[in-house]
Amino acid sequence: MATVNKTAHTFDKARLDALLNRRFFYAPAFEIYGGVAGLYDYGPPGSALQANLLAEWRRHFIVEEAMLELDTTVMTPAPVFEASGHVARFADWMVKDTGNGEVLRADHLVKGVLQARLDGDKEARGAAPVAAAAGADDKKKKKKVKTVAVRLEDAVVAEYESILAQLDNYSGPELGALMRTHAITNPGSGNAVGEPQQFNLMFASSIGPTGQHPGFLRPETAQGHFLNFSRLLEFNNGRVPFASAQVGRAFRNEISPRAGLIRVREFTMAEIEHFVDPLDKSHARFNEVADVELVLLDKYTQAAGQSTTRRMTIGAAVKEGVIANETLGYFVARIYAFLLHIGIDEKRLRFRQHMANEMAHYATDCWDAEIQNSVGGWTECVGCADRAAYDLTVHAARTGAALVVRQALKEPVVEERAVAEWDKKALGKTFKGDAGAVSKAVEALDEAGLMRLKGELAQGPAKIRTADGKEFALESTMLAIERKTFKTSIREFTPNVIEPSFGIGRILYCLLEHSFWSREQDVERGVLSLPTVVAPTKVLIVPLSARAEFEPLVREVSLRLRKAGIHARVDDSNTSIGKRYARNDELGTPFGVTLDFASVQNRTMTLRERDTTTQLIGSIDAVIETVIALVGGGLDWAAACGRLAAYDGVQAVEAEAEA
Amino acid sequence: MATVNKTAHTFDKARLDALLNRRFFYAPAFEIYGGVAGLYDYGPPGSALQANLLAEWRRHFIVEEAMLELDTTVMTPAPVFEASGHVARFADWMVKDTGNGEVLRADHLVKGVLQARLDGDKEARGAAPVAAAAGADDKKKKKKVKTVAVRLEDAVVAEYESILAQLDNYSGPELGALMRTHAITNPGSGNAVGEPQQFNLMFASSIGPTGQHPGFLRPETAQGHFLNFSRLLEFNNGRVPFASAQVGRAFRNEISPRAGLIRVREFTMAEIEHFVDPLDKSHARFNEVADVELVLLDKYTQAAGQSTTRRMTIGAAVKEGVIANETLGYFVARIYAFLLHIGIDEKRLRFRQHMANEMAHYATDCWDAEIQNSVGGWTECVGCADRAAYDLTVHAARTGAALVVRQALKEPVVEERAVAEWDKKALGKTFKGDAGAVSKAVEALDEAGLMRLKGELAQGPAKIRTADGKEFALESTMLAIERKTFKTSIREFTPNVIEPSFGIGRILYCLLEHSFWSREQDVERGVLSLPTVVAPTKVLIVPLSARAEFEPLVREVSLRLRKAGIHARVDDSNTSIGKRYARNDELGTPFGVTLDFASVQNRTMTLRERDTTTQLIGSIDAVIETVIALVGGGLDWAAACGRLAAYDGVQAVEAEAEA
Repeated sequence: MATVNKTAHTFDKARLDALLNRRFFYAPAFEIYGGVAGLYDYGPPGSALQANLLAEWRRHFIVEEAMLELDTTVMTPAPVFEASGHVARFADWMVKDTGNGEVLRADHLVKGVLQARLDGDKEARGAAPVAAAAGADDKKKKKKVKTVAVRLEDAVVAEYESILAQLDNYSGPELGALMRTHAITNPGSGNAVGEPQQFNLMFASSIGPTGQHPGFLRPETAQGHFLNFSRLLEFNNGRVPFASAQVGRAFRNEISPRAGLIRVREFTMAEIEHFVDPLDKSHARFNEVADVELVLLDKYTQAAGQSTTRRMTIGAAVKEGVIANETLGYFVARIYAFLLHIGIDEKRLRFRQHMANEMAHYATDCWDAEIQNSVGGWTECVGCADRAAYDLTVHAARTGAALVVRQALKEPVVEERAVAEWDKKALGKTFKGDAGAVSKAVEALDEAGLMRLKGELAQGPAKIRTADGKEFALESTMLAIERKTFKTSIREFTPNVIEPSFGIGRILYCLLEHSFWSREQDVERGVLSLPTVVAPTKVLIVPLSARAEFEPLVREVSLRLRKAGIHARVDDSNTSIGKRYARNDELGTPFGVTLDFASVQNRTMTLRERDTTTQLIGSIDAVIETVIALVGGGLDWAAACGRLAAYDGVQAVEAEAEA
Repeated sequence: MATVNKTAHTFDKARLDALLNRRFFYAPAFEIYGGVAGLYDYGPPGSALQANLLAEWRRHFIVEEAMLELDTTVMTPAPVFEASGHVARFADWMVKDTGNGEVLRADHLVKGVLQARLDGDKEARGAAPVAAAAGADDKKKKKKVKTVAVRLEDAVVAEYESILAQLDNYSGPELGALMRTHAITNPGSGNAVGEPQQFNLMFASSIGPTGQHPGFLRPETAQGHFLNFSRLLEFNNGRVPFASAQVGRAFRNEISPRAGLIRVREFTMAEIEHFVDPLDKSHARFNEVADVELVLLDKYTQAAGQSTTRRMTIGAAVKEGVIANETLGYFVARIYAFLLHIGIDEKRLRFRQHMANEMAHYATDCWDAEIQNSVGGWTECVGCADRAAYDLTVHAARTGAALVVRQALKEPVVEERAVAEWDKKALGKTFKGDAGAVSKAVEALDEAGLMRLKGELAQGPAKIRTADGKEFALESTMLAIERKTFKTSIREFTPNVIEPSFGIGRILYCLLEHSFWSREQDVERGVLSLPTVVAPTKVLIVPLSARAEFEPLVREVSLRLRKAGIHARVDDSNTSIGKRYARNDELGTPFGVTLDFASVQNRTMTLRERDTTTQLIGSIDAVIETVIALVGGGLDWAAACGRLAAYDGVQAVEAEAEA
């Protein structure tokens, strides 16, 4: 029993979906009202799994690095997103079916159709048909493109593969051109689609009783960090680097979400904004992660139409310039460690670099942690970008707030430079309304320009051109240009931002896929091998039956586990112990303890481990002590087997479950 | 030093606001954009305080009672709120200034003006003027009604007091009548105001790319529980009672919020929906709370225009019918215990019963936990209502989903009752399109009615009136009425809902007010005496200076506290230890440890307590052990003073702070 074969059955998405639905990990929201695409409610195990993921996230990032946590509002007045660029650019390209008016996301349409053609080609060349992976939760609406076994020219296959490798790099007009070139129509109706149009993904609303303030629901938590930058800096005693962190809800009005938790209209994010000196992006703890080796897919490889990854240490990646700087590399490594810690399969995790057109124009470098799953293939679950000084700069420009760091210089900087000193009266009298523009034009000159002007003025009137192109004649009576000495003891700069941004729902779904398997002897008996640290419930307490004589023991064991801070759950429902264990295997509960007549007589208790189904026995005290150590992480199951005696009632109980 | 006088200075709201702003507990959101009324961001201490409050809430309610936690969406399609009644009734009464168009909340206007007149009367009768309590965070917009010392007739005073005592009981038209009778105008402009109009408080948006699905942001989390009722019931193995619980964001488009955290447009709620058999609202753990004594203000007292409270035990209140049932009483007591546990002042806490018109028409009984504060007076912070079967019934009616509990009866119920058996053919032939209405009308008859009809039919044709008032003649050929025996082994019922609903921001603000005081020797030295369990940071680690030799010790102490799960923070900023302690008194940090040259030489460390400012000294090991016990709650400061030696460096350090 102790050897476990988790791969006896191939992964079955429909079986997993049925389990998640049956055990209420999550379900379509407003289901009794017919549901709304892209909105999901989390039930008790889903909520607990999410809460545990977030608790680990806080420990791993916020506590470990003393980040400053924030909680800012979702509702946001329009000017904020005008400044940030979201009103103009936070959009996807959509196309309309010219026949029935259905709206589709342009890139998803291209991907679906070309992938189906490639699958059909493979089939025509003799491969087994590709299994459809329709989810149980959105069966009705699933419009997986049908595969037809048609062989393609080798050159066409290569072209399609190249298009798919760089799909994220195409603009709307380019997607439109691709659809025309490759005769891509709406597979649902067979109708042609129109030209791609931009659709802004923010949900709009308005604030106040007279509707006077247009607002949006934030599509990310980031702006809340940037707007509070000055307060955060002050809280951190004026020093950089520091990071703020926030866990919160965000909203995106996705065009036609049909991918379960992978693409939703409302979701929980966890975001970090690490503010750093643009001249020094080293990281004090980089040496702790330099040897971490991970799988990278860089932008050059993708731009060449390839998707070949390579293993590299973070140290080497930063040294060779694959990853832009130490701080970005540090966070990539920390993200990697976090994902493995909570149970993501290392073999289905890679970091993909954004391509030139894909990346925001201001960003320096950006890497996505992609997790492979049956719904979205390699799916972005965490983004990690160096956003340079973009965000603080646009908000400062819009509001006039000084979003800068002021640093006392150890040695004052002394420099001599030319300055213009004006006779303001003469200036105003001569140029009237243009006086401001004229003085601005002069002050915009560099050192050489100023010195040249000084020379010209010594000769007579000198021409100056203002920003709007008009020319004026300056005379030496209006201004004197002199070289002066300046001493600066403060350096002022706009910090750069490194932003790791986590989509919690996507990570949670991938984790469920990676954790799911069926018992070798019975494909119907599903198990979620969630790591103890994130499992919704740590310990199941099972009294043999609901008889009154077990009650005091159930209460004692519950209370002692609760006092130890362990989330346990009693299942005294009217069904066999084996069935109750099987139900909790589906819930991912790692340990179970059983109270029976022997417990009443001898104060013994059995302890069962989920994956192996092996059972141990000991005194109630010894078992509780062992459980506390197992849950606390100080003990593994092999060690627990050395502490407590094996229990041979195990066969009977498990056999009963299979009956 | 060990005796502390927390009431040496009278409470100063402006001073508290300045502290909260300076230490970034919270601040107006979008401040650099000019802010938006009713939206606030929480900074690091505010976020941590809120997180700790919620962690205690989860422990106190969810863990203690094994509630089922949910996480449902904010975005909600319109039909849900049409069914729930929110589209029609979730509104406040507003009035418009007839001159400048300003929008005011009708009840707030009446309250403000009458209260100012009463204050003016008191002043005219010789009392000291009432201090204005404008908040620093919304100074600009604060429109506190100005008090003028005018003496009122005694009868008028009595009338105003009676109106204020039952203010929540008035409808919009009644408020309009009050404004006319008492010549209430907009105090800001002196203009008359129009008739009260309803304004729906839900933020509207629309879902999907073509705007086809109108939606609202939830104004409470409750509907998410009700819509998932069947899944929750199944998760709980089909049994009631059980409770679901949810912590989440909610949104209300308040008319003109000007009361800081007391009235906001976006807030965090914590809600419980306890589903219970309508025939049995006893609670299994009621005996644990029966002796809890608390302060009640019942509906009869208020309806009589009084606000006299009385102390009562929960046991007596339920027995005497003051509180409707045991389950409602149990939750009132649990709410009370929670609020005291997190630090609310018992003397500023009462439970007020809703008056007849104030309560939703379907509700059985409703009690608000009101906490007294300087902004809103006695302010509802938790509601606790018995909502009967309303919510499940309206959603079941709208969707056709069976939101019921099916309970196997121990003994099948056998009953004999009359039933009509139809000759469907004859019925249809005679009444055609009305056949359905006719059979419905007969089946709606009670036992006596059916037996009367049987008698009439035996005589000849009998008249029956359908629901829409038409009359038809029935004949004995169409139906036979017989008494038959029925055996039922399943009882089906819609459970009732007891709903405790917490406004976390309001509780948090009241807690800050109740925790705030200034040191006797210096009013400028503010302290937040937050209980350790909710304090944002538990321990401040203070190295004497930022010198390198303290670094290893700082790291060691930090790491050991972090491993023990204690949230500590290092402050190595370039300022005196006294100033750093003073800053942390403002942050509510209960303990501080100092590392100095003695620490390096002898491995000793001092430990300071926030409220008394007393300091102890011991080995680093002993101090850490003591701190762990203090934070864990197993030790109080008096006991800690018995464990470690007093430190007499204390005077020097504190004196320095005052310098």
